Amino acid sequence: MSFTHVVTFSWTGDAAEDPAVVDGIADALRRFIADADLPGLRSWSCGRDAGIATGNADFAVVGVFDDVDAFAVYRDHPEHRRIITEQIAHRVGQRTAVQFAG
Amino acid sequence: MSFTHVVTFSWTGDAAEDPAVVDGIADALRRFIADADLPGLRSWSCGRDAGIATGNADFAVVGVFDDVDAFAVYRDHPEHRRIITEQIAHRVGQRTAVQFAG
Repeated sequence: MSFTHVVTFSWTGDAAEDPAVVDGIADALRRFIADADLPGLRSWSCGRDAGIATGNADFAVVGVFDDVDAFAVYRDHPEHRRIITEQIAHRVGQRTAVQFAG
Repeated sequence: MSFTHVVTFSWTGDAAEDPAVVDGIADALRRFIADADLPGLRSWSCGRDAGIATGNADFAVVGVFDDVDAFAVYRDHPEHRRIITEQIAHRVGQRTAVQFAG
């Protein structure tokens, strides 16, 4: 069994208009994943919507963890919180998340 | 590189009230994944939200494919469309999807 975390974002403000802003968010998140000590992280990816379906959100993050405790370490990591506070929170038009066992 | 498909659902009607209805949807999707010939499908999972965060959606599906063509085979598979039409579509309060390279 594993524990999966999914988030979709629709951007507002500069992130909705300038792809470079979203690339900056993705790069910051990828650096955090590469550099942080996150035991129990099995896989993680993020990316901009490919534009092949109408009505989609703009961006998604998917992480698979050993269990809910490993997810919580990721969720609460100070570098993750810093990126959310400085680069993500004020640019979120809509955010939808699910965590599930599996 | 891979191609990731993410969907979150918030249920309405009987699916919002009866966990067995959602279990039936999850079981049908899992049987489809197990039985169908889906070349280029790397991983697939779905599940009910774990209830550890406020404001979350109710259910999510995550699939990772070799590329967008492999995703399209999954998306358009007749058994997938049948499950969506018969068990999912009329129970969706809100649906948010993203497909991304990665």
